[in-house]
Amino acid sequence: MSFRNNLNNAIIEKNSRLCVGLDPQIANLPECFKGAKSAQDIANNILEFNKVVIDACAEYAACIKPQIAYYEILGHEGLRCYEETTAYAQSQDLLVVGDAKRGDIGSTSQAYADAHLKNQYGLKRPDALTVNPFFGTDGIEPFIKTAKAENKGIYLLVKTSNPSSAEIQDQLINNEPLYRHIAKLLTKWEQKYQFDSLGAVIGATHPEELKLLRELMPNTPLLIPGYGAQGGTADKLSPAFNANGLDAVINSSRGILYSWQKEINGQKEFKSIIASTAKASRDDINKAI
Amino acid sequence: MSFRNNLNNAIIEKNSRLCVGLDPQIANLPECFKGAKSAQDIANNILEFNKVVIDACAEYAACIKPQIAYYEILGHEGLRCYEETTAYAQSQDLLVVGDAKRGDIGSTSQAYADAHLKNQYGLKRPDALTVNPFFGTDGIEPFIKTAKAENKGIYLLVKTSNPSSAEIQDQLINNEPLYRHIAKLLTKWEQKYQFDSLGAVIGATHPEELKLLRELMPNTPLLIPGYGAQGGTADKLSPAFNANGLDAVINSSRGILYSWQKEINGQKEFKSIIASTAKASRDDINKAI
Repeated sequence: MSFRNNLNNAIIEKNSRLCVGLDPQIANLPECFKGAKSAQDIANNILEFNKVVIDACAEYAACIKPQIAYYEILGHEGLRCYEETTAYAQSQDLLVVGDAKRGDIGSTSQAYADAHLKNQYGLKRPDALTVNPFFGTDGIEPFIKTAKAENKGIYLLVKTSNPSSAEIQDQLINNEPLYRHIAKLLTKWEQKYQFDSLGAVIGATHPEELKLLRELMPNTPLLIPGYGAQGGTADKLSPAFNANGLDAVINSSRGILYSWQKEINGQKEFKSIIASTAKASRDDINKAI
Repeated sequence: MSFRNNLNNAIIEKNSRLCVGLDPQIANLPECFKGAKSAQDIANNILEFNKVVIDACAEYAACIKPQIAYYEILGHEGLRCYEETTAYAQSQDLLVVGDAKRGDIGSTSQAYADAHLKNQYGLKRPDALTVNPFFGTDGIEPFIKTAKAENKGIYLLVKTSNPSSAEIQDQLINNEPLYRHIAKLLTKWEQKYQFDSLGAVIGATHPEELKLLRELMPNTPLLIPGYGAQGGTADKLSPAFNANGLDAVINSSRGILYSWQKEINGQKEFKSIIASTAKASRDDINKAI
């Protein structure tokens, strides 16, 4: 079964369009996971924190999205933590979107696709991967072919959530912004490779663009970051979903992971606060369908 | 001393503008490094191979450029190999350009910048990093500020070497291609942050664009991939260098790493063949100055 179908089934089963971003910041961990000095010990603490978050959110999240940058800070010990986080989430029946935004020339993209989508050497890799479109077809093709062969998914960056995304992504090409040009390439690749799990990343911080891009890509699975801490709100998210309320997940990272900081100072209740914030986020997002 | 100065000093000292790309493909290793099954054993073999390559090329190369995708295939064991390769090259007085092409929203780019440029947790990180410009200023700033603070360098993708780079990078914005728009942003950032080590990646496979981009960015350090196996030739590289023959390095990966395959079948002489190919590449490139 394709990644798109698996994710839509998870959405239906849990009645949730929430993706929980696992972006562990060392300085923001609960007190009980602080104080380690070596990369190995810090990575172990992050893994334990991630397991708590996964346990707290499993019922309320359609998928999780670890952002690999926060693991790479700790070098190979961090990458081990990323791998074990992925494996643990999958063992709890959660789909994992690896947020690595890779992209390169063809031969290197093939290496990245193998690295992030192919289960080998005893390593479980994510169920889907975010990919940067800057290189064009020959940089994208290895990701698509590998994902298709492995029943996994790709989310291509189309319009990112950050304030200065306009400097490049909104530049006009034949009177339309670059992000629309990329969306058109995406739908071309979708058809060329007959691949239903080629998705798009569109920031929740750009609701107008989201609406127009959804019209251009009616069947594309969407990954929407920028909800919560970055300022995106649920009332503007309706266009993300199809008529059945499927084919989109909304990511919240900091808004859930560190939700307990407002209420307590690193005491043990952080797990229940994370769970209730995830539940509230799920319900808030469901108002948009 | 800045990365730009360090690299120009290495160029002068060795009379070399060659960057050797360390893109280890498991299937293409010499026979004596083949046969391992586990990620750990394969990573150890690659590390030994890399050390041979570094020893063979140290005299003839201004820097090395490990492509991290080929290490990520092996997961955290591969990343350990990447880290140890970096540390070994630096111990042999070689500058290391980490070819990771990272890029994301601001907070995540800061995590990537820390991960790839900041020596911490006992890890030696590369001397410079390749960065994807797709996110605009707030995605670039953390890399620039971190690199500046650490006396390291950044190479921003401007025009990549692959055949389909034109699909996005050559699209016309106000009658000029996107890669020129990015080059102009680059020179703006160079001035805004007063940072001399903000370089550009331009493929050797696009000699016309190289010439025009060099005119637009007269003081920018250039990293030129695509020489050798990808088809770029030295006779077209003259515009890359400044009047003193500095401020550019030309990368060759497969053309050097696997040069021995044409002559022997994995016997021990591969080290001397790699060394003589690196020397010949250095001399070939020097014809362009």
